[in-house]
Amino acid sequence: MFFSKSVLALTVLAVSFSSYALKDATLMIVDGTVLTMDKQNKIIENGTVVIKDNKIIAVGNAELAKEYQAKQVINVSGDIVMPGLINTHTHASMTVFRSLADDVPDRLHRYIFPLENKMVSRDMVRIGANLGNIEMIKGGVTTYVDMYYFEDEVAKSVDKIGNRAVLGESVIEFPVADAKNADEGIAYAVKFINEYKDHPRITPAFAPHAPYTNTTEHLQKIAKLSQELDVPVTIHLAETDREKEEIAKRTGGKSPVQYMADIGALNNKVLAAHAIMVDEHDIDLLKQYDVGVAHNISANTKSAKGVAPVTKMLEKGVRVGLGTDGPMSSNTLTTLNELGLVGKIHKLANKDRSAMPPITVVEMATMGSAKALHMEDKLGSLEVGKLADIIVVDTKAPNMVPMYSPYAALVYGANGSDVRHTIVDGKILMQDRQLLTVDEKAVIQEAQSFANQVRETVIASGEIVK
Amino acid sequence: MFFSKSVLALTVLAVSFSSYALKDATLMIVDGTVLTMDKQNKIIENGTVVIKDNKIIAVGNAELAKEYQAKQVINVSGDIVMPGLINTHTHASMTVFRSLADDVPDRLHRYIFPLENKMVSRDMVRIGANLGNIEMIKGGVTTYVDMYYFEDEVAKSVDKIGNRAVLGESVIEFPVADAKNADEGIAYAVKFINEYKDHPRITPAFAPHAPYTNTTEHLQKIAKLSQELDVPVTIHLAETDREKEEIAKRTGGKSPVQYMADIGALNNKVLAAHAIMVDEHDIDLLKQYDVGVAHNISANTKSAKGVAPVTKMLEKGVRVGLGTDGPMSSNTLTTLNELGLVGKIHKLANKDRSAMPPITVVEMATMGSAKALHMEDKLGSLEVGKLADIIVVDTKAPNMVPMYSPYAALVYGANGSDVRHTIVDGKILMQDRQLLTVDEKAVIQEAQSFANQVRETVIASGEIVK
Repeated sequence: MFFSKSVLALTVLAVSFSSYALKDATLMIVDGTVLTMDKQNKIIENGTVVIKDNKIIAVGNAELAKEYQAKQVINVSGDIVMPGLINTHTHASMTVFRSLADDVPDRLHRYIFPLENKMVSRDMVRIGANLGNIEMIKGGVTTYVDMYYFEDEVAKSVDKIGNRAVLGESVIEFPVADAKNADEGIAYAVKFINEYKDHPRITPAFAPHAPYTNTTEHLQKIAKLSQELDVPVTIHLAETDREKEEIAKRTGGKSPVQYMADIGALNNKVLAAHAIMVDEHDIDLLKQYDVGVAHNISANTKSAKGVAPVTKMLEKGVRVGLGTDGPMSSNTLTTLNELGLVGKIHKLANKDRSAMPPITVVEMATMGSAKALHMEDKLGSLEVGKLADIIVVDTKAPNMVPMYSPYAALVYGANGSDVRHTIVDGKILMQDRQLLTVDEKAVIQEAQSFANQVRETVIASGEIVK
Repeated sequence: MFFSKSVLALTVLAVSFSSYALKDATLMIVDGTVLTMDKQNKIIENGTVVIKDNKIIAVGNAELAKEYQAKQVINVSGDIVMPGLINTHTHASMTVFRSLADDVPDRLHRYIFPLENKMVSRDMVRIGANLGNIEMIKGGVTTYVDMYYFEDEVAKSVDKIGNRAVLGESVIEFPVADAKNADEGIAYAVKFINEYKDHPRITPAFAPHAPYTNTTEHLQKIAKLSQELDVPVTIHLAETDREKEEIAKRTGGKSPVQYMADIGALNNKVLAAHAIMVDEHDIDLLKQYDVGVAHNISANTKSAKGVAPVTKMLEKGVRVGLGTDGPMSSNTLTTLNELGLVGKIHKLANKDRSAMPPITVVEMATMGSAKALHMEDKLGSLEVGKLADIIVVDTKAPNMVPMYSPYAALVYGANGSDVRHTIVDGKILMQDRQLLTVDEKAVIQEAQSFANQVRETVIASGEIVK
C-alpha cells in the first residue's frame, strides 16, 4: 500500500513537472485506433498523433498526449486513425460525365473521345475537378494522381480546397481541347510544370496518354524532359488488347512494357496505370526500372479488360498502389470503396481465399501507393517527419461493428461515407462529414447545371453512339 | 392565345374541383425520381408515391399529389424513390462475429462451426439480430431472408423494430445450440412456424443447412412439412466443392441440384442460396421446379468459391435474387453495396462489358429478389396494391452527381450510406439517416460488449484455428 502511494505520488509529480514543459503542437488526435502503416504495421490502441504545422511530430500511446499542448485536439473515441488514402490514378474532371453510357463496348474510342471532343473546356475541367476534389476528401483520399486536359484548372481547385495531388497534363497525338497535337501538349505541360513546380501540395507532371496514342519520338522527349524538370510521368500502360496489338505492330511483336523499356521511357519517374497485359518478363522490367504501378481493379473489371497480376507483382517487389481510374470508368473516386473488390477479385483470380489479405490491401492503398508515386519519404504512413495527411474512419457505424481486425473492417466493411475527418498538410478539410474549405452545395449545383448542358447537347442530339 | 387561356382556366377549375374531393392517405412521397421496377421499368420524374396504411395506393406524376391529402408528406427533391431492397440470404446474428478470421481456408469447418459451438446462445442471436436489423434498415434493405438458430429471437427483433423478414430456422445433423440433432431442429422449426405464421411482416421458414449436412430422410421430411404448413424452405445449395463431392459419393455421381430434385426436395417453396456449382442441366432443373436462387456474389468471391452462372440463369428464366450472405462472409448486409460487384464480376466472367447492365442488377435486387422469394405479388416494385416497402436514395451526394442514369448511379456510384429514408409496411423506420424505432447506440454498445466476451474467450484461449 505504501509502495502504491509513492508510485502515485511520483506519477503526479511527473505529470505536473511535464506540464511545466509542454511542447507546442497545432493539432492533436487522441484516443484513436492508430494504424501507423509503418514497416512493422504497428497498431496503437488509445493512440495519439501529434501534428505541428504540416508535419507529424509524434505518434504514440495515450501518455504521449500529456507531453503536448495543441491548439486543437480531436478525440476520436476509438475510431481508426490512418494515413490519408492515395488514389494513384484518376481523371477527376470526368465526374461531370459520370453514369453516361457505362456499358458501351470499345467505349474509349466509340464514346469517350467523341464526347470529350464536344464537351471538354476550361470550364468543364474546373467544374469537374471541384466535384472530384470534394468527393475524394469526403471519401478519405488526401492525395491523388490526375491525368487530363487544362490541368492548371485542376491545380487551381486543389490549391484552393487544400488537398494534395500529382497533376499530369495529357499529351496525345490527335487534336484535343487544350492542344492541337502532341507537341503543343508537351509545350502546355512544360508551361504548367514551371508554374506549379514549387507548390507545397501540387506536383505537376507529364501524362502521355498511352504508348499507342503517342509516337516513340514524343514518348522519348517526355522521358528526357521529366528528368530535366525532375517531375513524374504518368501513363496508361498495358491496359487494352488494342494497345497490345498496335504496339506489337509498331515493334514487330514487342509487349507495351518491353517497348517502353527499349525506347528508354521507363524509369523511377514513371507511374504506369493498369498494367493488365503483362507477363512475367514485363513484371521483371517494371521492377528493374523501378516503375510505379497504379492498380485500378474497379475500372478493369467493369470494362471486362481483365485482372492485373498484382499478387505476382507484389511478390517481385514492384511498387503497386491503388487507383480508381476516372469516374466514367469506376465510377467513384475514393479507393476506400475499392478495398473489398481488390481483396475479393484477387482471391477469385488466385482461387485462394487467403490470397490478398486485408493488411496487404490497406498497405496498397497507403504506403504502397506512396511508393508507386516514389513519395514514400513524405507520405503513406503515420510516422514522425511525414506530412500530416490523416483520415479518421468511423468504427461505430453498424457496418463496422464489431471490429476484431481494423484491416478487415476497412477492407470488407467500410465505404467512403465512413470517413469522419480528413486532414491534409496539417489542416482539417473535413470534420464530422462537413467540408470546411469549400461550399459543397455550390459545387454540386454547378456540376448539375453542367450536366444539363450535356443532356441538351450530346444526349439530345444523339450524335454519339449509345 | 385565347385557346391557351381557356386551357388554363379549365385546369384551374379541375384543380379546385379536385380539392373538394381529396382522397385520404397516410404517407405521400413527392418530387422523387421514382423507379417503379414494374414490368416496363417505368421511371417517373417528379414522381409521387401515395401510401395508405401498409399499402401503395397510387403511383404517378406531380399532378397525382394534388388528389390526396396525406397525414405526412415527404418531399425528396429529386432523390431516387424505389422499392426496398430484398436481401435473399443472410445470417444476421453473425454480425457479432464480423471481421473474425476472414481469410482462413476451409473456414466453415475449421473456424465457424467450432466458434458457433462455443458462442451461439439465445442472447447472442438477439444481440446480433438487433445489429443486423439496424444495419439493413440503414442500408435500404426492407426484407431479408435469414438462416440461423433461435430464430424466434430474430423474430422478436424484427417484430419490434418493424422491418420484414423470412426467418428460416436451421436444421442440421450435428448438435447445435438450439437442437441436439436434426429431428430436434425440425421440431424447433415447426413450433416457431406455428408461432409466427400469421405475423404481418414475418414469414417463418425451414432452413435445412445444406444437402450434405442433412440426411435424405430429413430433407424429404422438411419438403413435406413445408407443403403442409405452406412455408418457404431456404437452403445452401451447390455452394462448395466439398458439398459436390459428398453428394456425388452419396448418390453415385449426382450433382447437388440433381440429387435434391430426385429426392423430391425441389419445388416452388425452395430458395437455394449460392448455386455456384451448377451446369446447364442443373439450371434447367432450377427453372423446371420453379426454385428461387439467392446470388451472393460478395461471399462467393471473397471465399474464392467461384462465380455462379447467373447470366445463364437469367437467360433461362430462373428466379434469381440478390443476397449478401452472413456478415462473416461478405461482410456487410445491404445489397446496395453488392450492386457494383454483381455488374463488374459478371462482365469480367463473361469477358463482355455489356453483360449484366445496371438495369438488370437493380432488377435482381428488387423484383428479382421478390420473385426468388415467390413474393412478387406483394413486394419488389412500386405498384398499386403492393406493400409499402420503399427507400429513398440521396442523389446529391458527390458520388451520385450527376445522374444521367439512375440505374448506373445506383449500381456504380451508391453505397449503403446513401440511403436517406427507409419505409416498411407504410411506416418510416429511418428518416434522414436517423432510426426511429430502435436505439442505434444501445444496440451497437451491446454488440461491442458481446465482442469483448468473444475476445476474452475464443480469441484469448486460442482454441480455434486462425
